[in-house]
Amino acid sequence: MALWLRCEHAGRTRIGTLEGGAVHLHEGDLFSAPRPTGEAVPLEAVRLLTPTVPSKLIGLVNNFREGAAKAGLPIPAEPLWFLKAPSSYLAPGAAIRLPAQEVGKVIYEGELGVVIGRAARDVPEGEADTFIFGYTCVNDVTALDLIGRDAQYPQWSRAKSFDTFGPFGPVVATGLDPDRLTVRTLVKGKVRQEYPLSDAVFGPRQLVAHLSRQLTLLPGDVIACGTSVGIGVLRPGLTVEVAVDGIGALANPVAGPEGAP
Amino acid sequence: MALWLRCEHAGRTRIGTLEGGAVHLHEGDLFSAPRPTGEAVPLEAVRLLTPTVPSKLIGLVNNFREGAAKAGLPIPAEPLWFLKAPSSYLAPGAAIRLPAQEVGKVIYEGELGVVIGRAARDVPEGEADTFIFGYTCVNDVTALDLIGRDAQYPQWSRAKSFDTFGPFGPVVATGLDPDRLTVRTLVKGKVRQEYPLSDAVFGPRQLVAHLSRQLTLLPGDVIACGTSVGIGVLRPGLTVEVAVDGIGALANPVAGPEGAP
Repeated sequence: MALWLRCEHAGRTRIGTLEGGAVHLHEGDLFSAPRPTGEAVPLEAVRLLTPTVPSKLIGLVNNFREGAAKAGLPIPAEPLWFLKAPSSYLAPGAAIRLPAQEVGKVIYEGELGVVIGRAARDVPEGEADTFIFGYTCVNDVTALDLIGRDAQYPQWSRAKSFDTFGPFGPVVATGLDPDRLTVRTLVKGKVRQEYPLSDAVFGPRQLVAHLSRQLTLLPGDVIACGTSVGIGVLRPGLTVEVAVDGIGALANPVAGPEGAP
Repeated sequence: MALWLRCEHAGRTRIGTLEGGAVHLHEGDLFSAPRPTGEAVPLEAVRLLTPTVPSKLIGLVNNFREGAAKAGLPIPAEPLWFLKAPSSYLAPGAAIRLPAQEVGKVIYEGELGVVIGRAARDVPEGEADTFIFGYTCVNDVTALDLIGRDAQYPQWSRAKSFDTFGPFGPVVATGLDPDRLTVRTLVKGKVRQEYPLSDAVFGPRQLVAHLSRQLTLLPGDVIACGTSVGIGVLRPGLTVEVAVDGIGALANPVAGPEGAP
C-alpha cells in the first residue's frame, strides 16, 4: 500500500510516495519499479501535478444503481462511456474555470478513478487486478445543459472536455479493495455526495474487462467509474473536494472565466 | 508546400519530407523548424507511421450538406463532435482489424484531417490559418450499429475507438487551400466517395475557431472534418484508400480479428 504522486519540485517534474506529510522522491517510471532517491521533501514544498498523464480518460455514464433509479434510467446492459480530452486534465488544487461562452449549468461529479498499470487488452475479469495500478479521485466536471442543446446529437465529449474540467488526484493509492470504498464530494466543506462503490453496476474489475475488449488500456490511463446521486452546480468562489478514504481529498476551487491565470 | 511524414528507419523514429519518392530526413520537432540532415532514403526503405501523434483526434458529425440532406438531418447550428481514443491510431498501410466481439456493421468514412501546428485557444476564424500546420487524410472507421445499440445512450466514442479504427496519413501537406480540396474514398480501387470540402457546414478554419473556444488544441492534434455520402461496409480482404489531391492516398487493408499480428 502506497500513495503515489507526481509533482514539480525545484523546477523538475518528479514522482514520489507520500508518507507522513513528506514526499519521498523516486527516479524512473511509475509503472516500471521506480527507485527511491533517499530524498524526502515536505509536501508543502512541491506543487502537485495530476498523478499520471493518461493517454485517455474514460468516463462512465449511468453506472450506479441509486443514481439510475433516481434518474428513472434502466440499468445498462454494458458499460456506457465517453472520452474526456487530455487538455481538460487539472492538477489537485488548481482552479476549475467556468467557460467564457454561455453553456448553462456546470456541475461537479465526484468519482473513483481506476488507474491502469500495464497495457490491457482482452483482460478476463479475474485477472483485472493485475492490470490496475491503483485508485484516485476524479471530479468529472460537466457542462450539463450542453449535452442536450442540439436536438439530434448529444454533446457528451464537448460537455466534459472544456479546459480544467478533468481534475484528478491528489495521489494514486495502491493496495485498496475498491468494493469497500465510498466516494464523498464536499462543497464548502459540506458533504453533497456519499455513495459506496458496491452500488456500481460495473465495478472497476468489470470495467477493465469490458473496456479492454474494446480498446487497449495503457499505463496511466484512468477510468472514472461514473457518479451517483448528489451532483450539484459549480459557482465561482466554491471549493469542491472529492474524497475517498485511503486515497485522500482532491480539492479544486472554482473560478469564473476571468479567473484564468 | 511540403509533404511531412513520420517513419521508422534503421530502428529509429524519424521525420522527413517526401520529395520525388525519397524521404529527406530531418532532425528536431515537426512544429519547431526541424532541420534537414542532408540524408535522403527511398520511401520503400522506411516504415510509415502516423504523421503525428495527436493528444486528441476530434471527429465531426453531420458536417456536410449533401450528407445531411441524404440522411434527412438538419444543418447543425454548431460543430458536433466526438473524440477518438489515441489507442485507435493506425499507420498508413497497416491493417484495420474488425473487432472480435459482435458489433454489427463496420464502415469506412473518408475525411480531410486538419493538423494543428501550435497551441490554439480562442482563435478568431481570420487567424485560424496560422494555427493549422497542414492537412492529412483520415479514415474514421466506425462500428455503425453500436452507436444505437443502447436505447438511452448513443455510444459514439466506443463505436469510433476500437484499436486500428483511426488510420491517418500518409503525410501532412502544408500550403494547401482546404476550400479547393476533394476527398475521394476508393474500395478495391473503385471510387465510393467523392465530395468537395466546399460543401462542409463548418470548414477547417471555422472548426479551429469554434473548437478552440471549447478546448485548447495542441500541435499534432487532428480534427477530422466529418464525412459525406458514399460510406460503406468493410470486410476482410478489402483495401480502403482515402485520397486527396495534394496530400496523397491513405491505404489500409482490412483484416478479421484473427488477422492481428
